[in-house]
Amino acid sequence: MFEIDRLIRLALDEDIGTSDLTTSSVIDPGIKGNAQIIAKEDLILAGIDIFCSVFTFLNSEVKFNKFFKDGDFINSNSAVAEISCDVVDLLRGERVALNFLQRLSGIASLTRKYIDRVKGYNVKVLDTRKTTPGWRSLEKYAVKVGGGINHRSGLFDGILIKDNHIKACGGIRRAVEKARANIPHTFKIEVEAKDIDEVREALESGVETIMLDNMDTEEMEKAVRVINKRAVVEASGGINLDNIVDVAKTGVDLISVGALTHSARACDISMNIVGIKG
Amino acid sequence: MFEIDRLIRLALDEDIGTSDLTTSSVIDPGIKGNAQIIAKEDLILAGIDIFCSVFTFLNSEVKFNKFFKDGDFINSNSAVAEISCDVVDLLRGERVALNFLQRLSGIASLTRKYIDRVKGYNVKVLDTRKTTPGWRSLEKYAVKVGGGINHRSGLFDGILIKDNHIKACGGIRRAVEKARANIPHTFKIEVEAKDIDEVREALESGVETIMLDNMDTEEMEKAVRVINKRAVVEASGGINLDNIVDVAKTGVDLISVGALTHSARACDISMNIVGIKG
Amino acid sequence: MFEIDRLIRLALDEDIGTSDLTTSSVIDPGIKGNAQIIAKEDLILAGIDIFCSVFTFLNSEVKFNKFFKDGDFINSNSAVAEISCDVVDLLRGERVALNFLQRLSGIASLTRKYIDRVKGYNVKVLDTRKTTPGWRSLEKYAVKVGGGINHRSGLFDGILIKDNHIKACGGIRRAVEKARANIPHTFKIEVEAKDIDEVREALESGVETIMLDNMDTEEMEKAVRVINKRAVVEASGGINLDNIVDVAKTGVDLISVGALTHSARACDISMNIVGIKG
Amino acid sequence: MFEIDRLIRLALDEDIGTSDLTTSSVIDPGIKGNAQIIAKEDLILAGIDIFCSVFTFLNSEVKFNKFFKDGDFINSNSAVAEISCDVVDLLRGERVALNFLQRLSGIASLTRKYIDRVKGYNVKVLDTRKTTPGWRSLEKYAVKVGGGINHRSGLFDGILIKDNHIKACGGIRRAVEKARANIPHTFKIEVEAKDIDEVREALESGVETIMLDNMDTEEMEKAVRVINKRAVVEASGGINLDNIVDVAKTGVDLISVGALTHSARACDISMNIVGIKG
Amino acid sequence: MFEIDRLIRLALDEDIGTSDLTTSSVIDPGIKGNAQIIAKEDLILAGIDIFCSVFTFLNSEVKFNKFFKDGDFINSNSAVAEISCDVVDLLRGERVALNFLQRLSGIASLTRKYIDRVKGYNVKVLDTRKTTPGWRSLEKYAVKVGGGINHRSGLFDGILIKDNHIKACGGIRRAVEKARANIPHTFKIEVEAKDIDEVREALESGVETIMLDNMDTEEMEKAVRVINKRAVVEASGGINLDNIVDVAKTGVDLISVGALTHSARACDISMNIVGIKG
Amino acid sequence: MFEIDRLIRLALDEDIGTSDLTTSSVIDPGIKGNAQIIAKEDLILAGIDIFCSVFTFLNSEVKFNKFFKDGDFINSNSAVAEISCDVVDLLRGERVALNFLQRLSGIASLTRKYIDRVKGYNVKVLDTRKTTPGWRSLEKYAVKVGGGINHRSGLFDGILIKDNHIKACGGIRRAVEKARANIPHTFKIEVEAKDIDEVREALESGVETIMLDNMDTEEMEKAVRVINKRAVVEASGGINLDNIVDVAKTGVDLISVGALTHSARACDISMNIVGIKG
Repeated sequence: MFEIDRLIRLALDEDIGTSDLTTSSVIDPGIKGNAQIIAKEDLILAGIDIFCSVFTFLNSEVKFNKFFKDGDFINSNSAVAEISCDVVDLLRGERVALNFLQRLSGIASLTRKYIDRVKGYNVKVLDTRKTTPGWRSLEKYAVKVGGGINHRSGLFDGILIKDNHIKACGGIRRAVEKARANIPHTFKIEVEAKDIDEVREALESGVETIMLDNMDTEEMEKAVRVINKRAVVEASGGINLDNIVDVAKTGVDLISVGALTHSARACDISMNIVGIKG
Repeated sequence: MFEIDRLIRLALDEDIGTSDLTTSSVIDPGIKGNAQIIAKEDLILAGIDIFCSVFTFLNSEVKFNKFFKDGDFINSNSAVAEISCDVVDLLRGERVALNFLQRLSGIASLTRKYIDRVKGYNVKVLDTRKTTPGWRSLEKYAVKVGGGINHRSGLFDGILIKDNHIKACGGIRRAVEKARANIPHTFKIEVEAKDIDEVREALESGVETIMLDNMDTEEMEKAVRVINKRAVVEASGGINLDNIVDVAKTGVDLISVGALTHSARACDISMNIVGIKG
Repeated sequence: MFEIDRLIRLALDEDIGTSDLTTSSVIDPGIKGNAQIIAKEDLILAGIDIFCSVFTFLNSEVKFNKFFKDGDFINSNSAVAEISCDVVDLLRGERVALNFLQRLSGIASLTRKYIDRVKGYNVKVLDTRKTTPGWRSLEKYAVKVGGGINHRSGLFDGILIKDNHIKACGGIRRAVEKARANIPHTFKIEVEAKDIDEVREALESGVETIMLDNMDTEEMEKAVRVINKRAVVEASGGINLDNIVDVAKTGVDLISVGALTHSARACDISMNIVGIKG
Repeated sequence: MFEIDRLIRLALDEDIGTSDLTTSSVIDPGIKGNAQIIAKEDLILAGIDIFCSVFTFLNSEVKFNKFFKDGDFINSNSAVAEISCDVVDLLRGERVALNFLQRLSGIASLTRKYIDRVKGYNVKVLDTRKTTPGWRSLEKYAVKVGGGINHRSGLFDGILIKDNHIKACGGIRRAVEKARANIPHTFKIEVEAKDIDEVREALESGVETIMLDNMDTEEMEKAVRVINKRAVVEASGGINLDNIVDVAKTGVDLISVGALTHSARACDISMNIVGIKG
Repeated sequence: MFEIDRLIRLALDEDIGTSDLTTSSVIDPGIKGNAQIIAKEDLILAGIDIFCSVFTFLNSEVKFNKFFKDGDFINSNSAVAEISCDVVDLLRGERVALNFLQRLSGIASLTRKYIDRVKGYNVKVLDTRKTTPGWRSLEKYAVKVGGGINHRSGLFDGILIKDNHIKACGGIRRAVEKARANIPHTFKIEVEAKDIDEVREALESGVETIMLDNMDTEEMEKAVRVINKRAVVEASGGINLDNIVDVAKTGVDLISVGALTHSARACDISMNIVGIKG
Repeated sequence: MFEIDRLIRLALDEDIGTSDLTTSSVIDPGIKGNAQIIAKEDLILAGIDIFCSVFTFLNSEVKFNKFFKDGDFINSNSAVAEISCDVVDLLRGERVALNFLQRLSGIASLTRKYIDRVKGYNVKVLDTRKTTPGWRSLEKYAVKVGGGINHRSGLFDGILIKDNHIKACGGIRRAVEKARANIPHTFKIEVEAKDIDEVREALESGVETIMLDNMDTEEMEKAVRVINKRAVVEASGGINLDNIVDVAKTGVDLISVGALTHSARACDISMNIVGIKG
């Protein structure tokens, strides 16, 4: 619940540390200023509230004028927001606040690209647990802002029996039986299948969801026919902007894409001081 | 000093939370196993020690056999290391440990690509403060592993007078004078210059380093001639794998690249259980 | 993941604070001793490992000889375990360690009483979220040790639409539709129903579990007939050792009992020093 | 000083974790509501301020209308307070806030029962260190609210030489001498005595308080006569609502009761949403 | 209980921060070395264990050879201890470890000077609550090592009614009555008296200890006569090495000296590397 | 960034702990009062804001009337500030707040004495890393308030090659070369020299600053002549109020004095309640 505040503090600590040497030696305290946040490329905005929180941590009297909200598409060179504050705090918070905003908008913008690709197909795009350590909830939020769907948050809120579980347990059937006997009644079961035989075994075990792991699209199509609506079907592994449409065409229900969070590049956003009041 | 341990704990907390539902319901405690870590693409390894620490946090008796060390080039499909441990802990730690290793190796591998491009030119490639909040020291470490050079760690350990400082202070000369009067004697001064006029003003102010901000290569060349070794010259802004050679040819001493940390994609690395002992 | 260690530290801090005045003034350092842990009433043991951890926090060289393990039935006046350690640390840790052990064994023992009552009926006894703040995972562990089943851990790992949700959302149907559209595919849906009409509405909405909230047994029976295996049925509200058999007879699948955690009394367990070595 | 805030955060963290799945999927943000807190049995209120703090942590704009204050007797079915807030936050905070209020009111109500029993006798009812780890100060507060008296807070603010100290030190006299030589001049000394001989030894050692440990009432009476006002007399061990009057009749000054904190059952209190404003 | 570890971490963090720049750039990792700790003036040693802990935090394989223990008198130019370790860690830990040792030895040495002055008088020298914030328990430990006696640890473990309490409460008698009615039976009461009238009032109120606050020695003598062993007598306020003998001669039982902790100067102790092994 | 808040909390925790026993038993809640802060000796004020923060932590409605600000000279017996607040909180915060103010003012006042001595000489007085663990930034702040200059904050923001580095590295030249190759371009290099030979070696290595370590003034003069403005010269080691003028006369640029922080005595400042409103 409180991990975002902790991350902001951590980020300010690691950037400012003992003090902002340049600013404290060059700028007189008490000078007020306005700054504009400018999108330097087309993007989907994500993280505007955490961006503001960074400055609020430094100075409780900072004022914001937000021209857009999370999820909005913003054209290159548009102003995203305006901030008024002591110049000293504008300069101390600039980099940390932008680092949050650029990374989260990067994830939202990339997610939107995937969503746009499969528009018209009856399929949802999901994230994975391949997130930056410490950023799980923020990155999953950015995926949602971009139009994606969240898979489980962690190991604690979803049952997903993967290849390593199957190997260690001795087969899909055995693993599903043990899971069903031991998990709370509030959970469904998902199993990873690497070929049609495993798909069949999972199906016979009565699982609610089957993940097709690293299959080619031909094999996926076959799996979808075999499953025949008796379980939700998730495609996973090596899916990118080039091949996602082919995957969508196989008829799977869900497509999970690790790259949404582990390989999004940061959006280009900058902050310019536009006015100074002595 | 202790922030890496804190980040590992945070990462395990956000992934495992109340428990690893799947593993605890499917795998009997006490089963031992071996797992191999496999590079699924060519990469520069970074983060193998933090990878191991994740498992050590979960189980102090885990054993590692590392085939490579940070900074090594690893061919696709090679085994990076082998781990022996309770299977339950292999499965609980897998994702978090890989998330660290994939991200850091991604940064080191990208850095190496930049370094390789400018081989033969007398220029160094530097990182920036555009890092993932909470990851500053880890990401700067990965840049170094990849062969890059670290710029200042934060606002506390380097003087860099940027455009917003200049605007708020009323000119380069004034800013440099104030800095010199107020900073400890252990620091040099760097100033950002956006054109030749500012380069000249910075030079006359006697700064030790001049950053050429977002100049085109023609302008950079001119700046280098004007400065004529009287200050260290750093190029910054919009530099990528396509244009870095042109920048290097201008004769600058340092090239800083935000993309090293803010836009590296994760390397593909996986963990496979290869043996189980009842 | 790390909250139990934090709770032990908190407990030692609040009891020992600046120092154990009595022990440090009365007992010379360096004296070794043995102590026995004695059950002063019949009980189901729970928490023996956390009991030991308390002493290990104080002195890493403490040695334990455990005669029983969690889940074992122990007769009044039996020795549970023996500890060897500096006497100073035996005395400093005694109360905190016993406070953990007595409370957790109290919960396990009470849970076992409920389980024993409904032996022979095809029904499971569950805990609730009515736990002591800070103790959620420990108390749920004690319920499991006693033979009970855990309901969801918190608001994050289960969907349970309760009366207040229904009121605020405007009806069961509407709430279930919204939930289904928004939750990850890994979760089932449970709805609270206060009468047969609500049971029918829940059933038509296709929920996986229906909680009969504060119904009398006659109404429960009717609900079970109406549901007719189309959903899992949970009874909840005001269930105690006197009426649980009647509830079990109605044919419900699950019975949840808040008293397991919010009203168990501590077991009587004591520690006696039995040997001193100067 | 700050441990109550920490406990509230811990409690919200363990209940809400990554998010309140049900509420966030079912209730639209921005809807306001009123809720009533209803006592479902006769009780002594304790913890109304911490109850409110839980909601304030979630939403700084929540408003309370409290009809009673801590220490008040409340009749079954009376409204304790009313809350106005975003419905989302009413639902997120409900269980944690009630868990605090129910437990603390349970302790206060049980304490009052003990106090009422011994009304008319010149004796005080005290708590012990048999508290829930992490809850020491809260539970001692609830005892005070119920009319009880607090014994020492922990090992750091009172000298109590117990049986295990006496065994390890080699006798009461020796232990009292060592204590007197080593403790700050601000403390009195209390000694546990298990029979009349020990009472005499304690008395001759000049202690300020003698605790009669697990004596029957006949022995207690004798001890009171022997002590004859030369020390404060505390009865302890196995005292309950059935036998406390007999203990009071022996003429002891203080009666300490572990059950006040370790075995109070939670009071039944509930929260009902009574109004919704779109 | 755990605050000393926290202070060591805090101290290492504030000194080393992101890294020891000098050492990491100048010394190759893996070089081992020995260093000697040398007392550069006569002193009473205090803090040798915390000194060692600082290095153990940095490197668990450091080895110590201690020639003295806390409380020992050490001659100028004697070796206190020898350390063997990676040179990198010797250099990283040197300053922080010495800062602890120099400050604590400074307090112990100053305390010893006060003790030596009043040798032969039947009086004890006590510390006060005028300690460095964050260092209360360490500084009180150093006072004890130096031969002093600890007054209460804080506001929580002793009753001391001071001038401001008396003013706010309306007189000594009233304050003592209220205290007696409200405090646990484990505490004695001490009252501050600024003149003989207040001494008399305190005495009549039956307090166990009377503090003579900022009296001259003549007035103290009179107070001692008036009290005539009916209460313990503590002298306090403005006592230093020059006047402590005169105070001792007045016949008071206790003398408390703020300067022990708030104005001790650090002892001169240094660390010299005496051997390097490649 | 947030370490001062943490230190205040730590300080309040260690002083107040479970409660202020005296105040809570003697003073009725709700009584308001005014208190004056009085300088009991001539001093330079430092820490008035942290003094106020202590009370604000306890009671957000406290009001201050400050008659002086940090850096001001205050005459003995002058009022520094006035506080209005619940009397209970005045009494709970008094000691901790004064402990901060007295220590910091002590450092500022001592620093001012050193500064005054060398007035008229072209030399600056610097602090060192010989600070109280946990207090680095506060104590360096107090030095600045007193008119001193801050040396580096820690090992992370300045390069200072000391005797132990030189020994372990094998000579000044070698150490400087390695430093220059490895440190960020933003730093200058300082080297410690113990005699004229080392001064020459440092000079030839091209370092920016040379520290003359424990030289007598004759040797210092010689070193200043040898260096002849080619490097900044810092004198260090054993400098006190008696010899600082002689050191200044040698022509060094900087004089660093450990005693500023490790051996300042606390200023005498007290708090008197001057008005009570029932």
